[in-house]
Amino acid sequence: MTYRAPISDMMLALQHGAGLEQAVKAGHYGDFDNDISAAVLEEAGRFATDVLAPLNRVGDQNGVKLADNKVTTAPGWPDAYRRWAEAGWNAVSGPEDFGGQGLPMAINAVCTEIWSASNMAFGLCPLLTLGAIEALHAHGSDELKATYLGKLISGEWTGTMQLTEPQAGSDVGALRSRAERAGDGTYRLSGTKIFITYGDHDMADNIVHLVLARLPDAPAGTRGISLFLVPKFLVDADGSLGARNDIYPSGIEHKLGIHASPTCTMTMGDNGGAVGYLIGEENRGMQCMFTMMNQARLGVGLEGVGIAERAYQQALAFAQERKQGRAPESAGKGPDAIIVHPDVKRMLLQMRAMTAAARTICYATAVALDVSFRAGDAKVRGDAAARAALLTPIAKAFSTDIGNEVASLGVQIHGGMGFVEETGAAQHLRDARIAPIYEGTNGIQAIDLLTRKLGTRGGAAVWALLDELKATVKRVEASNDPAFGATAERLRDGLAALERTSRWLLDRLGTAPNDALAGATPYLRLFGATLGGCVLAGEALAARDAGEAFGEAGRYVTLARFFAENVTVQAGALERTVVDTADTINGADAVLLA
Amino acid sequence: MTYRAPISDMMLALQHGAGLEQAVKAGHYGDFDNDISAAVLEEAGRFATDVLAPLNRVGDQNGVKLADNKVTTAPGWPDAYRRWAEAGWNAVSGPEDFGGQGLPMAINAVCTEIWSASNMAFGLCPLLTLGAIEALHAHGSDELKATYLGKLISGEWTGTMQLTEPQAGSDVGALRSRAERAGDGTYRLSGTKIFITYGDHDMADNIVHLVLARLPDAPAGTRGISLFLVPKFLVDADGSLGARNDIYPSGIEHKLGIHASPTCTMTMGDNGGAVGYLIGEENRGMQCMFTMMNQARLGVGLEGVGIAERAYQQALAFAQERKQGRAPESAGKGPDAIIVHPDVKRMLLQMRAMTAAARTICYATAVALDVSFRAGDAKVRGDAAARAALLTPIAKAFSTDIGNEVASLGVQIHGGMGFVEETGAAQHLRDARIAPIYEGTNGIQAIDLLTRKLGTRGGAAVWALLDELKATVKRVEASNDPAFGATAERLRDGLAALERTSRWLLDRLGTAPNDALAGATPYLRLFGATLGGCVLAGEALAARDAGEAFGEAGRYVTLARFFAENVTVQAGALERTVVDTADTINGADAVLLA
Repeated sequence: MTYRAPISDMMLALQHGAGLEQAVKAGHYGDFDNDISAAVLEEAGRFATDVLAPLNRVGDQNGVKLADNKVTTAPGWPDAYRRWAEAGWNAVSGPEDFGGQGLPMAINAVCTEIWSASNMAFGLCPLLTLGAIEALHAHGSDELKATYLGKLISGEWTGTMQLTEPQAGSDVGALRSRAERAGDGTYRLSGTKIFITYGDHDMADNIVHLVLARLPDAPAGTRGISLFLVPKFLVDADGSLGARNDIYPSGIEHKLGIHASPTCTMTMGDNGGAVGYLIGEENRGMQCMFTMMNQARLGVGLEGVGIAERAYQQALAFAQERKQGRAPESAGKGPDAIIVHPDVKRMLLQMRAMTAAARTICYATAVALDVSFRAGDAKVRGDAAARAALLTPIAKAFSTDIGNEVASLGVQIHGGMGFVEETGAAQHLRDARIAPIYEGTNGIQAIDLLTRKLGTRGGAAVWALLDELKATVKRVEASNDPAFGATAERLRDGLAALERTSRWLLDRLGTAPNDALAGATPYLRLFGATLGGCVLAGEALAARDAGEAFGEAGRYVTLARFFAENVTVQAGALERTVVDTADTINGADAVLLA
Repeated sequence: MTYRAPISDMMLALQHGAGLEQAVKAGHYGDFDNDISAAVLEEAGRFATDVLAPLNRVGDQNGVKLADNKVTTAPGWPDAYRRWAEAGWNAVSGPEDFGGQGLPMAINAVCTEIWSASNMAFGLCPLLTLGAIEALHAHGSDELKATYLGKLISGEWTGTMQLTEPQAGSDVGALRSRAERAGDGTYRLSGTKIFITYGDHDMADNIVHLVLARLPDAPAGTRGISLFLVPKFLVDADGSLGARNDIYPSGIEHKLGIHASPTCTMTMGDNGGAVGYLIGEENRGMQCMFTMMNQARLGVGLEGVGIAERAYQQALAFAQERKQGRAPESAGKGPDAIIVHPDVKRMLLQMRAMTAAARTICYATAVALDVSFRAGDAKVRGDAAARAALLTPIAKAFSTDIGNEVASLGVQIHGGMGFVEETGAAQHLRDARIAPIYEGTNGIQAIDLLTRKLGTRGGAAVWALLDELKATVKRVEASNDPAFGATAERLRDGLAALERTSRWLLDRLGTAPNDALAGATPYLRLFGATLGGCVLAGEALAARDAGEAFGEAGRYVTLARFFAENVTVQAGALERTVVDTADTINGADAVLLA
């Protein structure tokens, strides 16, 4: 089962659900041409279908191998990566002064979904490179940029992010890797990092590791962490590759999924220390990492969307092909395709509606990020940055939860065939499972949403978003379209619940933080369920207004309605859970430790 | 990480939540002695901890091998199985006239949970044997019983259930395997079966296959299916093993989980036909299969409970050991164990509360089955049979959904370590995923609940259960214990929603069956969420009344409250989903097939 990028759904989500058209009209995107972006996405979809999708199962079955300090990827992968980079896909949103195409991050977000959907383990590699590009571009010296940025943007070299150590996972401040000043402006690094994605591989000529480490005189905790660029091969003055640096893969993990993506233990300093170059200032490494974090988290959210879309397409095809049993009102003589059964339709609609909502939330985050960098007006930029900051944890956590739920429904629709690996449905479920964990677990996203996003400026970013969403609901009501069913009512109730819950949590944040923290996860779900319903309704209205531009518009109305009536409807219960549940959670020790 | 059977939780659930004590007091269990059963469960728990749990990962890693028409199981498995059978565990609930211990099915249900928790792939084998025992005991001739039943009950031989064929999964009536009359009262079978659990293995001397097939003159569909006993080795008159029968494993599946359980393609008739013996009457095979179905479905529900308990124990231990970050109000200097974080506590409470609810629902099903066979009074037996029939689809589907949700939370609590296979958390998730699929998908369970259980006798079995649950809520209210929080309110609202939804569905079943079918799955979830909350509240009250018999009673109150406030609270939304959603689902083609 292959994958085809759903360009029409994507364009509707991007232009209308995520607000790209509005931002372009407002002038925030300069002379950006929407027609060009549609062509770019079509081309990305073709590459994904033709080259990446067929390698997805090959990668899952072959995995990666570590021998003689080198990681070998699955057959066909190095060639596919080179073709992908040569076609310019790594450079889509890269800065033009270093060879990038300078397209909006929103366009690259759609591409990221496409790479993830066709081959999640493959798509991870450029996600990491993108993080390295951003950190280097924002904080690196001119010399470092001149040497490394062009090759990273072209994709000739790839990047890694090296934070995690055995004792330092979610708590980055606990890391111990050491960096000594070498006296010549460079540093010598030693230590061990774990869970390093694409820490070594054979797909590119060089790897640019971005490593967090401590100087000998650094303060404890996150204020004593510095960021270093540590190349796999040192780069000579003329740009050619020199000596092998003292950073090696010393182990690879045997994982539940994304088998083709090497997850490495990296050892530095067994031979005198890895040569590193400081990025930014000493002891200011965490600030540099935060630069990468918003986009890395958005990238993981898009993995959730991509894997959900892939699982949906596969389940839909299976449900149309597999004949079994008969529908209650079947006209034919033989067995019907299982898609005739209402319960199978329900699962497929659930998959599609949840995927669509997650997609638009992610794209909206990307548009807000774009505007926060591109708009001419400082207030517009500031508001967009606050919007992007607010949406990021929802984009990451809600979308990756959905990735798992949708992949599991995909297995279910396949019945017994879904549990057999050869079908491929199970791989999506295995692959999807990492996304709620890495780049900050979804619990950490929920705490971030609560404490740093709702908890900033009296929740101003939340209230501003709610005002926009209320306007969408008014437009649904004004449409008087009976096909919307209970959509407006569900969305209105959802927004009211979200507003009350936000106020309750904001109050508790000051007075009883543990009460608020106990409700962080259901709060994020409440936010996603309500926001998702509103953006889908907005898209449905736009599709109606657009005539036939996105195909028959009624299907987007049905999808929005299904989401509102099946997902947003849970808002009231989630509100009560947030408000009621602190007592039991704060008294949980008596249950758990009895 | 090992597994310890939570005997205290189990005894509370069995005696009070599931109503065993009440049934014993009412005399339905004869002279059954509760003290003996506690000793049996302690012993089962020891065997599981010592022998089965250590083989769980061995089985996952080694899987099974097929060569020369023989399946070889993982190292240590045949020996463990022999020890397990010799200790009498297969015979717990078997009929005494054939060497069984005649203990209640409710006791065996707890044991099934224990085997599944310690080693789900292992526990599957006796589940299948149990099905064969039941069908043979209920429908087999005296001669067949004399030859096969004793060996099946002792566990010296194991059983299989062979329904599925490539074109006949959920739709059993589509099967094509053929049986020809041999003229001597026996039959010769030919055909191919797929997905046959423990279809071949090296753990027992003989395998007794129960095979559905069609006679040449059989009518089409389910009315033309007959059930045959097809032994792997023919049995001579003196009971010794004779010739190898013409039924062979011709393939094994490479599956997402339960790697140690061989899932075989079975081929009959390549060498003249497999010798088969009719069970029951010709063309009445489906009736015989239905005999096994209630208990097989309950068994799968108990797999969900078992895997959830195992995942919970592992996550709890990890959360107590893993140090990372600091709690908001941490007193210590170093990092805290992650269990201090409210979000981790929430996940653990969710795991434990959902597991406990599923457990009690399964045990209650077993008690109802027992009473339906054991009670002296015909009306009591009939009511109990209706109760068991009603609870079975909920026990199967709700518990196995919970098995997956809890296993996924277990992975999440482990963070990155949860995605690494060596930890074992991922195996639980992989293993758990089959349970919502086999023995009738959870969608089919929901349709069964709706059409055959709610839809029978005007929903009488549902109304009778609701009356009992309402009485439980009254007792919670009467307790005036503030520790229950909003429990009574949530349960009352849940029961009201369940009652309204049941009436709405019952009405639609007659007038617009597709509308009702569209809501089947959310209806089952609503039923489970409400029933689960009520039984946990009942257990909490019983624990309070029992003093220290089950340890500190307050923790059961907290658990019931958590479930009511976090799960039962969703009842209203589920009701609205059922009622609202038929329109979108019945109009789904426009979305899905556009």
